[in-house]
Formats: sequence, C-alpha cells, structure tokens
Amino acid sequence: MTTSDRIKNAQLRAKVMSAEDAAALIENGEIVGMSGFTGSGYPKALPKALASRIEDAGEDLKIGLWTGASTGPELDGALAKANAIVSRMPYNSDPAGRDRINKGEIDYLDMHLSHVAPMVWEGFFGKLKTAVIEITGIREDGSLIPATSVGNNKTWIDCAERVILEVNSWHDERLEGMHDIYYGGALPPNRVPIPLVSADGKIGQTTFRCDPHKVVGVIETFLPDRNAPFSPIDETSRTIAGHLMDFLEHEMKMGRLTDRLLPLQSGVGNVANAVLDGLKDAPFHDLKAYTEVLQDGMLDLLDCGKLTFASATALSLSPEGAERFRNNLEFYRDKVLLRPTEISNHPEVIRRLGCISMNGMIEADIYGNVNSSLVMGSKIMNGIGGSGDFARNAFISMFVTPSTAKGGKISAIVPQASHVDHITQDVQVLITEQGLADLRGLSPKKRAEKIIENCSHPDYRPMLRDYYERAKRDSFGLQTPSLPSESLSWHQRFIETGSMLP
Amino acid sequence: MTTSDRIKNAQLRAKVMSAEDAAALIENGEIVGMSGFTGSGYPKALPKALASRIEDAGEDLKIGLWTGASTGPELDGALAKANAIVSRMPYNSDPAGRDRINKGEIDYLDMHLSHVAPMVWEGFFGKLKTAVIEITGIREDGSLIPATSVGNNKTWIDCAERVILEVNSWHDERLEGMHDIYYGGALPPNRVPIPLVSADGKIGQTTFRCDPHKVVGVIETFLPDRNAPFSPIDETSRTIAGHLMDFLEHEMKMGRLTDRLLPLQSGVGNVANAVLDGLKDAPFHDLKAYTEVLQDGMLDLLDCGKLTFASATALSLSPEGAERFRNNLEFYRDKVLLRPTEISNHPEVIRRLGCISMNGMIEADIYGNVNSSLVMGSKIMNGIGGSGDFARNAFISMFVTPSTAKGGKISAIVPQASHVDHITQDVQVLITEQGLADLRGLSPKKRAEKIIENCSHPDYRPMLRDYYERAKRDSFGLQTPSLPSESLSWHQRFIETGSMLP
Ligand SMILES: CC(C)(COP(=O)(O)OP(=O)(O)OC[C@H]1O[C@@H](n2cnc3c(N)ncnc32)[C@H](O)[C@@H]1OP(=O)(O)O)[C@@H](O)C(=O)NCCC(=O)NCCS
Ligand SMILES: CC(C)(COP(=O)(O)OP(=O)(O)OC[C@H]1O[C@@H](n2cnc3c(N)ncnc32)[C@H](O)[C@@H]1OP(=O)(O)O)[C@@H](O)C(=O)NCCC(=O)NCCS
Repeated sequence: MTTSDRIKNAQLRAKVMSAEDAAALIENGEIVGMSGFTGSGYPKALPKALASRIEDAGEDLKIGLWTGASTGPELDGALAKANAIVSRMPYNSDPAGRDRINKGEIDYLDMHLSHVAPMVWEGFFGKLKTAVIEITGIREDGSLIPATSVGNNKTWIDCAERVILEVNSWHDERLEGMHDIYYGGALPPNRVPIPLVSADGKIGQTTFRCDPHKVVGVIETFLPDRNAPFSPIDETSRTIAGHLMDFLEHEMKMGRLTDRLLPLQSGVGNVANAVLDGLKDAPFHDLKAYTEVLQDGMLDLLDCGKLTFASATALSLSPEGAERFRNNLEFYRDKVLLRPTEISNHPEVIRRLGCISMNGMIEADIYGNVNSSLVMGSKIMNGIGGSGDFARNAFISMFVTPSTAKGGKISAIVPQASHVDHITQDVQVLITEQGLADLRGLSPKKRAEKIIENCSHPDYRPMLRDYYERAKRDSFGLQTPSLPSESLSWHQRFIETGSMLP
Repeated sequence: MTTSDRIKNAQLRAKVMSAEDAAALIENGEIVGMSGFTGSGYPKALPKALASRIEDAGEDLKIGLWTGASTGPELDGALAKANAIVSRMPYNSDPAGRDRINKGEIDYLDMHLSHVAPMVWEGFFGKLKTAVIEITGIREDGSLIPATSVGNNKTWIDCAERVILEVNSWHDERLEGMHDIYYGGALPPNRVPIPLVSADGKIGQTTFRCDPHKVVGVIETFLPDRNAPFSPIDETSRTIAGHLMDFLEHEMKMGRLTDRLLPLQSGVGNVANAVLDGLKDAPFHDLKAYTEVLQDGMLDLLDCGKLTFASATALSLSPEGAERFRNNLEFYRDKVLLRPTEISNHPEVIRRLGCISMNGMIEADIYGNVNSSLVMGSKIMNGIGGSGDFARNAFISMFVTPSTAKGGKISAIVPQASHVDHITQDVQVLITEQGLADLRGLSPKKRAEKIIENCSHPDYRPMLRDYYERAKRDSFGLQTPSLPSESLSWHQRFIETGSMLP
C-alpha cells in the first residue's frame, strides 16, 4: 500500500503538498492548534519545517502553540529549540520547552485539561488561525480517521480558520473504529447531559468531521510517535504500589468497593505506571479504566485479563509498548477507546463513574495540599494536566510519590507546599514508600499527624514533628497550625544550599 | 390553626414529645446530622435542650455535628458554648464555634459542600446515628415538607439510624411546593446523568420520604430562623459592583454573553450581596440564578423583575428580607426552588448550565491563588463552602474583595496566599474597589502584572511591585517567580505587629 492510499477523498488528495510548503502558510504571530497528547499523534513534519524557516532561513517567526497536552521532540522540542514559541498552552513536558519556560522565554498557560476546549469555544482565548492535525487516514466522504491521540483535535478542527493535515501511515489502519468522537456538546444555555454511563460506553462517531474547504494542505508522513521509555520499576515504586493494593483490599473488606473496584484513572509518570504493575497480582478482576492516557502498565493489565476495557484520550506507550500494541491490535481493538479530552476528563463523567484516581506529585504538605507542577514553587516541571479534573471528582483521590527526591536532598513532605495544585479537600489518600495516609474524614490536625507519621522519610520526620509541635504552640489560629516565618524555609534552604537538610 | 395541624400523619403525631425528651435520646459520642444551611431551617429546640443537659444538668456529653452548612445561635452557638461539639463538618460561621475551632477545641472538617452527601453515602465518614431535621409540616402520607433550607436533609434522613423532627410552624405553609428533592442519585457504578438542563427545571418531588419507623420523636416549635442582617452597602462594595457590571457589559459587547447572561451564582458575604444590588440598574433582563443561597439582593432582583427565577438550597435573608419573603410568598412561589445541596452545588449541573460565579474571599496572591477560609493561613473564618464547586465549574469564575481589611492594616493582595482554596486555574476574574483584573488566557507573569496594577491598594502596590521585580530577578524558576524567604513575610509581620505595613 502506498502512503496516498490513506487519502481516499479526491478533493483532499488534491491538496497534498510538502511539509515545507505547508509550513510556509503559517504566519508570524498566529495561534496554531496542533494535535498531540503525551507523545502520541502529534504532527511530526510541519513543526520541523517551521523550525527550519527560523534556523536555516533566518526568518523572524513566532507562534502561539496550543495542543492536547505534551507532544514530542519533533514538535515541542524542535520549536522550542528554534525559539519559535511565544506562548504555549495547556501542558508541556518537553525539556527544551520547560527550559525556556523557566527562563521566562515562553509564556506558559498551565490549564486544567477539561477547561481547554470549552474555554476556546467560549471565545476566551482569541481566534485560532490554523489547526495542524495528525491523522491515520481520510475516508472517501472526507471525514478524518484519528491517530493515537484525540486530545483537542475536534475543537481545533472546528474552531480554526484553516486546517493542515498530516496523514501518517506509520499509524496502523486498524485504529479506525477505536475512537469515540462526541459531537453533542454545545455552549450554555444549550448544554445537555453527556450520555456516558460506563467507561466502555460509546456516545459518538469514529471520525472527525472536517469541512474540506478549510483544509489548505495535506502532508504525507511515515514517522513514529515519541514513545518515551518508562524507567524500570524500582523498589520504591514497588513498595508504594504495595501500600496502594493493601488499601484497595481493605476498602473491599469494608464493603466500600467490590472486587471489580471502580473505573481506574492512573496519572502520568513512573510511579503511576508502577502502581498499575501492582494490580497484576491483586485480587481484583473485570476492571475498567477511565483515564487520560493508556500506559504500558494498562496494556499489561489488558493482556493478563485483569482489565477488560480502557477509555483514554491518548496512548502513552514505550517503544516496546507501541510495538506490542500494534502486534496485538486485533486483541485491543474492542478493549480500548480514545475520546476527546473534554470527555475523558469531564468532571460530569468522572464524578458519575466514580473513578479511583492515582496521580504522581512533586510534594505534599502536612495538611495534604499537593503540588503537582512547580518545583520550589516557581520552576515548572510539566503542569497540572488533568490531575485536577480527576482529583476533585474521583470516588477516591490518591497521590503517590517517593518520600524524597534528588537522592534524599528534597523531602516530598514539607511544612507548607510551595505551590498548591490540589487542595486538601481533593486529596483523600497520600502514599509514599514509607506508608499510606488515609485522610478521609480527618480534620487538618489529624491529617498532619497521619501524614508525618505514615508518609514522611525518617530523615525528615523529626524535623516535621518539631515544626508541627511548635506550630501548634505558636500559630495564629489552630485550625491549620502554621508558622509563616519558617513554613517555606525548607525550600529556601534547598535553593541556597542544594539540600533541604540543615 | 394550632401547631399540631401541621402534623397530618397520625403515626407521627403520636410521637410528639418535648424537646427535652427528644434531646435525652442523644447519646454521648454519637454523630448527629442536623438540618440547617446559612441560618435557615435548622432545629432550634433540641440543640438548646441538649446544651442544657451539659450546662444545667452537668452531664458529660459531646457529639459529632454534621449539617448542611452554617446554622444559627440556637444550634451551633448553643452547642459550641456548652462545649458539646467534638467534631464538626462541613461548614461553620458561628462565632462561638469559630472560636473553639481556632483554639483547637473542635475538630473541624471543612469540605466542598458537593462532596458531603456522596461521601457520606459512600461510607467514608462512619455511621450517622441520629438525624434532627426541621420541617414545615408532615403530610398525611408521612412525607415531610421541607422548610427554608434543604441542604443535606435528604441524606441525613436516609442514612441515619433514627430521625427526630422539629415541626416549626413559624415557617409558612405555602413553602410546600417550593422544593425539588431529587431521588435519582445512586452509588457508582449505577449513577446516571442528572436530568437538569436549566436553572428552573424540576427533576424531583416536593417532599422528603421518611420511613416513619425510624422517627423516634417529633417536636413542635414556633421559632424564627436566624436571619442575620446584612451590613448596609458601603462605597467600597458599590465600586466593586460597578467594576463587575462594566465587565459583564463588556462581555456582552464582545458577544460572549447575551443580555440575559447565564445563571448567576452569588456567594455568601456582604460584598457578594452588594454585587447583586448593582445588577438592578444594569442592562440585563430575564436573568436566572443557580446558586447556593437566596440573599436579600436576589429578592430585590426578583421584585424588580430583573430576575425571573432563582434556584438555591437555602434562604439566607435578613429579618426584613424574611418578612418580605413571607408577605409576598404568592409572588415568589413559582420563582424560587430549593434543592438538595448535592444538586445545587453539583459540578455536573454547574458546568452544564455555565454559571457566572461571584464569591467573596480573604486574600489573593499576585498569581490569583485565592484564600477563602484561613486568615494568616491558620485561623478559620468560615470554610470553603460551595465556592470550589462553583469556581472550578463556572462559565466565568469571579472573586471579589475590598483591597484591604482591618482598616488598611491587611492587604487582600499578597505576594503568596497563606492558604489556597482556589488555584489560579479556577480564578478568571479578580475584583477590588481599585479595579478588575480579567485573567482569562494569561500566563502567571501576565496575571501578576494585572493583579498588582488593577487590584491592589495604593498603600501596598509599590511593595508588591518591588517584591515581584526582585522575584523575577532572583527566583529559582521563572514560571511563577517567587521568593520563599519572604513570600509569607507580610503575614508574619501582621502576626507580630498587627499590620502588614512595615
Ligand atoms: C509530578 C510528576 C512530575 C511526578 O512524576 P513521576 O514520574 O511520577 O515522579 P518521579 O519521582 O519520577 O519525578 C519526576 C521528576 O520530578 C522530580 N521531582 C519529584 N519530586 C520532586 C520534588 N519534591 N522536588 C524537586 N523535584 C522533584 C524528580 O526528581 C524527577 O526529576 P528528573 O526527571 O530530573 O529525575 C508527574 O506526576 C506530573 O507531571 N504530574 C502532573 C500532571 C498529572 O498529574 N497528570 C496526570 C493527569 S491525568
Ligand atoms: C471570604 C469571606 C469571609 C468574605 O466575606 P464578606 O462578608 O464578603 O467580606 P468582608 O470583607 O465583610 O469580610 C468578612 C470578615 O473577614 C475579614 N477579612 C476579610 N479579608 C481579610 C483578610 N485578608 N485578612 C483578615 N481578615 C479578613 C473582614 O475583616 C471581616 O471581618 P469581621 O467580620 O471581623 O469584620 C466569605 O465570602 C466566605 O466565608 N467565603 C467562603 C465560603 C464561600 O465562598 N461560600 C460561597 C459558596 S456558594
């Protein structure tokens, strides 16, 4: 099969052009909405051609870049290196982009992923000029077959003035049918209930609609997704997973969960992936996932039959995972469904389904405020992503982290979070390799005792106890005892000395 | 009409007893779920009789107290004074209770109001022993006519082992029909969409179901709601309201809102009430409210015809407001509907309807993190209440406050919030009497510039500019420039000297 066989619509086949010609259409200063979510389904040819206009042709060119979430080196990486991004939303995990953001060179708007599509529709962010969307193919009727991520593609295609498509024949054609694109949304006052009542429900169509007149260029590619490898699962992560499994079993014994649990959401990051691994040997079955991304750990669970269905907005697989996914695609075809992020992350659906939510974090304070995004309160790691959509609306919201970072020089449990992404009300369970703190129903002071005793690292525990005891004595009020003169001093010490330890 | 005419069911009429006899049923250490929301519809006789068991009879008696939200002096006040409350959730605004909480004498769990009923159903908080519910009357079939608040009453009645009723004939009988009690809820995996698609929709029944066998006592009362007066609207609040009206008109001109706006939510507090007053002369019409409480300001809007419908979970009126409400009840009967808090505050419904949300706050920082609850990060004012339910899910989420408190000794705009209830992602517009900051689409640094320049008080503005400039120079990362060594120093200075000014 030649690449062009993927473009079955004649009108659009006539618009095939080189990445360079398509990139030439982008104007300095415009906002471009690209596809891409956690390293899957992002355009891989146009962004590089755009970077080359700057790096090779010396043009003065900067764009505002919107995506689904993180992308890959050929998109965020290439454009960040070329200094082509003036503003970026809603999520970035690219190292080059992160570096420019933290130097103040890219204006980064870090958003709840569920807010993005509605707020763009509501007209809060200005006019989207061009959508650049990677797809698997184009059907005869001109509808578009999505690739390995859906993200905000539907919104970009609908809202942009013009559309450029990258038809990537690296994507398996059998992806067709594995997407559920819901077109029932509307602006208020015309919004209606989203009719999804289980993780495996279908409420949409398998393709994107796209007005062919808006398409100004079609690029043909054969290029793999980023597919970053996961770290091998270490002892720390395995211990964290063990605590989490014990907790779920306990909930089952208490009758608050059955052995089928409730739809699982597992966040990005290495620890979250390790937790999934722990489920393989746990006494649960017929599980479903209603989550943002499908990681290797989810594939393992599908393979062994523990998981019977996974709903997500994107794949986020290692190179081996991607290979495995492709080799067993017939097996996964009726067990995996990719949806627009506005549905995968919708508070309405998450609260209805009652997801069990497990996300990574940077740090938590003794009251259980969680920082997911800003190291030392100012340096962005990735962003809040969808963690807030899930944490606030989950049946049980859990956050996991090793108790220390950077070889023990940073405590993940601190007197006061240097930045807050998830307020105490949205954090029901905290887990480190030291142990688990079940915070449900506990007032702040009881939370503090549990978090310090169960979760903090022994190197920092005496310091936390000391702080907390003095705070209980000297605090302005005693609802959440705190000492503003020193509650952020651990962060300050790290900034000055490279360690939170005195 | 005699009081007993309110109890039309013979089986329940036989259970009429004195408040003292009913109070005698409560055991030391049990959890009691009482009705009551912002000073309306709370039991007024039993709590006092309970307090008297301690204060007059010298008993050792402490309970865990759950309600809808705040209540009145005869409930929270009386029990707090008698030191009868060991734990309290989910909201308190009683001064005596607040005082005990801030001394560490009451264990206070400050919750998102939308989380309360589901989490109790999910079994996270232990067994509810007794429900004590104020109602307007009992129908022949034993169903209960709600009073001036609904709150969590349905959940308490359903979940408690036994029920005590206070039938308060102070409430107007014509309240019957003004409630919409939705019984379509379920635990996951059996939850279905909530079929509400407009603020004035009816999806439930007008009364509470209650198994008569669970009722262990019925008390007859004739006692008024708290009905705390609002402060007269001052110049500062009027200016804040003016900025807000200008903003709404601007949104209308930009085509993002029509002159019917979208359902209004207005928070508790004096400033929020003043904002409603501003709507009287604004060029909008046929407005609807989908809100938590119905304040005097909402009555004014109903009276002048600007507002055609108000959905809430409780009345929160001044004594004059309550009088007016009663005198014109025929007029209000088809324009006001009270719902369970789990519906009035449900993220699913709020996001669907696209509420315009306006809430008071304690302080915001230069990035727009909002503190609604903890003065100096440790001393509770009231609690987060439903502000998070609305702020995160609103069409536009606005927070209002005077730019200073305590005669200028406190700045409401600070370098870093001493506690965070609403993260930057949930705060789109900030308003003080100084001006309005429209933060939509802005990255943190652009937010900071707008907030400092538009919202801060001139006495503090140079200090904020100075901090921010130095933070941009010396911060660890530049996504949200901050200096942990001094970001909370204003709070520390206030604690030490009684003023944030140097
Ligand atoms: C918070 C988050 C970065 C943790 O990621 P993770 O892979 O599980 O955790 P790790 O322990 O491997 O940490 C990742 C990096 O953060 C660093 N880190 C973790 N905690 C830290 C802390 N308290 N201080 C400084 N750095 C820290 C680690 O050292 C590591 O750095 P490296 O990449 O330089 O080695 C990640 O979960 C995240 O980005 N979350 C926000 C978005 C989200 O939750 N999305 C899911 C939505 S559905
Ligand atoms: C934050 C909140 C207290 C503001 O209330 P308000 O009546 O609008 O505002 P006011 O300016 O009159 O302030 C109320 C009190 O807080 C004090 N206050 C306000 N800002 C303060 C600050 N930064 N530091 C210290 N005290 C402050 C005021 O001095 C006043 O104190 P007083 O009662 O001793 O005079 C109130 O909105 C609240 O409790 N919000 C949380 C719950 C909520 O939002 N519910 C709505 C959900 S739908």
